[in-house]
Amino acid sequence: VGAGPGDPGLMTLRGRECIEAADVIVYDYLSNAEFLQWAKPGAEKIYAGKKSKNHAIPQGGINQLLVEKAKEGKVVTRLKGGDPLIFGRGGEEAEELRDAGVTFEFVPGISSSIAGPAYAGIPVTHRDHCSQLTIFTGHENPDKEESSIKYEQIANSPGTKVMLMGVERLPIITKAILDAGGDAELPVA
Amino acid sequence: VGAGPGDPGLMTLRGRECIEAADVIVYDYLSNAEFLQWAKPGAEKIYAGKKSKNHAIPQGGINQLLVEKAKEGKVVTRLKGGDPLIFGRGGEEAEELRDAGVTFEFVPGISSSIAGPAYAGIPVTHRDHCSQLTIFTGHENPDKEESSIKYEQIANSPGTKVMLMGVERLPIITKAILDAGGDAELPVA
Repeated sequence: VGAGPGDPGLMTLRGRECIEAADVIVYDYLSNAEFLQWAKPGAEKIYAGKKSKNHAIPQGGINQLLVEKAKEGKVVTRLKGGDPLIFGRGGEEAEELRDAGVTFEFVPGISSSIAGPAYAGIPVTHRDHCSQLTIFTGHENPDKEESSIKYEQIANSPGTKVMLMGVERLPIITKAILDAGGDAELPVA
Repeated sequence: VGAGPGDPGLMTLRGRECIEAADVIVYDYLSNAEFLQWAKPGAEKIYAGKKSKNHAIPQGGINQLLVEKAKEGKVVTRLKGGDPLIFGRGGEEAEELRDAGVTFEFVPGISSSIAGPAYAGIPVTHRDHCSQLTIFTGHENPDKEESSIKYEQIANSPGTKVMLMGVERLPIITKAILDAGGDAELPVA
């Protein structure tokens, strides 16, 4: 379940139902504690949060936990900020569940990549100005041999670009985009 | 208010509140009529739908309608499929409201660009495979002198690409992508 960017009003109706129905809630770092208050009495709440380098449970352990709790016959809600499939590792968790024969559903969440700018008054597309949106991660898998981000294309492609989770590496990424021909006068929020 | 891709469960809590609170609901073509059943008794429901070439009210008329109803002191909910700022013309409507001195909020919606693939079991990003997502329109403003979609970049940039509203122009767009060097063996859903 994607919890959205933090405003409890941006939870989906189905997401709230899943929280209310859960025997076990496995949750990441969330910007709003209200989500957990919707849990039924006695629901088990497990923090599996990741906040930068501080991982409460490594990803392999989270996958195993989801499978184990489901195999016990429990309804498990895996609660993540934003959308589970926008750099949320929902695909990896789903693969583990599928391999273990556990049925599941994805409940999409409002992604901060679109809602963050919206709350700041910035439309990420506009009929007169912008027909394309590119969302990329500023926090790639550090084990990758080669970055799959092509900064030349980030620098030179049309439309709005949204970088997620890039605060730590911002100076490196900014330099890479400028070195690739990015416009130093480009407005950035 | 973004109504999401159709499943009523993907409406946000805040979106539902806005429907319930509205004196006037101005709605587009929606894939689910349930949303309108949440309106309070006596709420005025105005269809401003656009379904391809069949526009019930032209955009200028919609903008004017929103301003007029708001100036009458009414709470107006403008309900659109998906997210209002992903090719939803929410930016244009907001500009009109701002110019008229009408206060407003954006309520983001689940975008079909992410949730559609999710419901089909396709994660649009994956830590091992894909660090970038590009969403582009297949239905640009026909009055534009030049397309702002660069098919060379669609064809050759890394990551997942999602085209919205491209069914009518699909043969043209497919040819443009292949002509620009796109991989004819690329899996497409």
